Amino acid sequence: MSWFCDSTRFDRWLARKLLARLGDPEVPLVLWDGRSIPDRSAPGRVRIGDRRTLYALAQHGELAFGDAYAAGRIEVEGDLVRVLEEIFSAPARQRIRARHTALRRHRARPSTPREARDNIHQHYDLGNDFYQLWLDERMVYTCAYFPTPDASLEAAQWAKLEYVCRKLRLRPGERVVEAGCGWGALALHMAERFGVDVTAYNISTAQIAFARERARERGLEDRVRFVLGDYRDIRGRFDAFVSVGMLEHVGREHHAELGHVIDAALTREGRGLLHSIGRSQPLPMNGWIERRIFPGSYCPTLREMAGVLEPWGFDVVDVENLRPHYARTLEHWLERFEKRAAEVEQRFGAEFTRCWRLYLAGSIAAFRSSSFQLFQLLFARPQREPRWTREDLCAPFVPERSERCEK
Amino acid sequence: MSWFCDSTRFDRWLARKLLARLGDPEVPLVLWDGRSIPDRSAPGRVRIGDRRTLYALAQHGELAFGDAYAAGRIEVEGDLVRVLEEIFSAPARQRIRARHTALRRHRARPSTPREARDNIHQHYDLGNDFYQLWLDERMVYTCAYFPTPDASLEAAQWAKLEYVCRKLRLRPGERVVEAGCGWGALALHMAERFGVDVTAYNISTAQIAFARERARERGLEDRVRFVLGDYRDIRGRFDAFVSVGMLEHVGREHHAELGHVIDAALTREGRGLLHSIGRSQPLPMNGWIERRIFPGSYCPTLREMAGVLEPWGFDVVDVENLRPHYARTLEHWLERFEKRAAEVEQRFGAEFTRCWRLYLAGSIAAFRSSSFQLFQLLFARPQREPRWTREDLCAPFVPERSERCEK
Repeated sequence: MSWFCDSTRFDRWLARKLLARLGDPEVPLVLWDGRSIPDRSAPGRVRIGDRRTLYALAQHGELAFGDAYAAGRIEVEGDLVRVLEEIFSAPARQRIRARHTALRRHRARPSTPREARDNIHQHYDLGNDFYQLWLDERMVYTCAYFPTPDASLEAAQWAKLEYVCRKLRLRPGERVVEAGCGWGALALHMAERFGVDVTAYNISTAQIAFARERARERGLEDRVRFVLGDYRDIRGRFDAFVSVGMLEHVGREHHAELGHVIDAALTREGRGLLHSIGRSQPLPMNGWIERRIFPGSYCPTLREMAGVLEPWGFDVVDVENLRPHYARTLEHWLERFEKRAAEVEQRFGAEFTRCWRLYLAGSIAAFRSSSFQLFQLLFARPQREPRWTREDLCAPFVPERSERCEK
Repeated sequence: MSWFCDSTRFDRWLARKLLARLGDPEVPLVLWDGRSIPDRSAPGRVRIGDRRTLYALAQHGELAFGDAYAAGRIEVEGDLVRVLEEIFSAPARQRIRARHTALRRHRARPSTPREARDNIHQHYDLGNDFYQLWLDERMVYTCAYFPTPDASLEAAQWAKLEYVCRKLRLRPGERVVEAGCGWGALALHMAERFGVDVTAYNISTAQIAFARERARERGLEDRVRFVLGDYRDIRGRFDAFVSVGMLEHVGREHHAELGHVIDAALTREGRGLLHSIGRSQPLPMNGWIERRIFPGSYCPTLREMAGVLEPWGFDVVDVENLRPHYARTLEHWLERFEKRAAEVEQRFGAEFTRCWRLYLAGSIAAFRSSSFQLFQLLFARPQREPRWTREDLCAPFVPERSERCEK
């Protein structure tokens, strides 16, 4: 039996099973001989190039899908994002049950300091110039905040930085520690606009080098210290702790450790903000993402995020779910990425390009379909003067003329 | 040895131990012979009337304090609220540890439907006219929302009702179910201002009778159905689920049951709001409150609240901690209560009056000192059109002239 001959009854049965396992989304599978399962029209279809790929899908699910898509053995007809969104949205109780079981069996890659460095290196050290092709000018690689849906990505990332600072009510001269600072945009924003002293940690060498250079350019070296180090390396006492887009990489085996670090880092009047991709139910990361994109990652539920802080008696002050904002952010990224796709392909090859396309499109679909959430959680030591209302948070987001980055 | 003779060295040692157990607050204990432990001046002091009371404090803690205060065997010199606030705020790691242990041993009164009815009856069926002495005109017995700290209680309760409806984005014609509706203020507000159909449950007969009468007066009988029943009695499907100040009475043994009820009650597009007194760490209710004021009560942490919803895959959309608003609400209640204290005492006796004074003052102190939180948690089924920003929530709270209750 050749792998390339016509599909058999077993192949077609397997395809139907695959769809049923996904909760029967309105996305037919088209087999290598052109047969569609089920046989009906739909705005989007998934073409499976050969029997080997079909079997791999049956055996390895998401991981096989991603790898086969990247390799071109799976093609998606129609709008990639919408097809994935339909798959993620299919009423899939059986899938959720299956993944619950999976979580019990699941062991994410460990994330001790050394492994964390390897995990992070794999994704963030691809080269600053790769990310510069499609991120905003400040190089912010986390969910933006769009005051209106039609705001530009630049404006929305500025608003996000500003929003985080507003939530923390930063005052001039305060000491802030940031865990997982990316290319340094938030650290620089806090120092420049709010006059605070920042110590920012990151284990990506490429990012830290970039951030230090930006600090030099903007004359902020005396107020922002970028440290090549893990959150577990944080030393000293600070008025505020902030972490945007790091908790996903911490791994839930290390949540307790992170809570301890936060408690040790904060003064008696301290407060903090955790910003993280989350889930509504505890589920392992998509198998392909966990293996190929973000090794060691785990997106916590709000219950789990609250559990990081609970042992230390912090008051949770405010939680905002910015899910639609991450879908919008990713739409911008994908659009920019596609504009530079030829360059990416020339430099990194076709498979890499298809891989990133799937990752960005799949992430849009995941946020649109509620598979992912984005929790921004504000917490504080018991405070004498808590915020009265959210009115100050709702003020318009208007960058001042003097914003150096706006030049 | 007479109980009324001078204090012994053992008595004084015990008093010091008591203070140490509380984390050494700046509140000296004055023994029956006038000796102060420690011997220094302070803005507030606690007078212990006899040796029996001292021993009871050592043995039963909070419960003995409350009972002795109500009976007049303990007097507080200085501002009652401030003294209690100082006691609650004392850095008391040892106390927290002790209470953690207590929680493991602790078994709150069970809260099956029958016991829940008895528990609720004990507090809420004291007579509507008792509560009318000091609640606002709408009879709202939960945390208000003060757009500014100097808003009147009337305006703040109106704003709270409005705020809850805004958060839920109620639309005319929708069906709403309310679990634990008190005297019906929110149910009536939702129907009157937002044109929704409300089914509201409560197990307090006195409250339900009052609520039905109000519905008749306001011509809302066709749109608001008040049902004498437990949250477990909810039948039917609704667009929104709302519960303000009931979760505290549910008891954590029944959180899973409540989650199941919410899931069963909501349509595929449904959403809901849980408003509850909370904690930053899992602790049993103050022993005196649990025994004398709210039998069977337990105030959950945010982690525990999120845990009610997590098994059902609801997205948590927004969490707001209204802790300072409950302190302010209680300040209004205590002030109004004191104005009518003579009437209360005449009708219910001195012990009852002192008991309520301690309960209200202690609650102010608990919210001010962060011993209690107030979580307002908004959740939803995965939604196609989630709220974009909180801007609509921040709009001014201006009752229309036609507000019937404003007449």
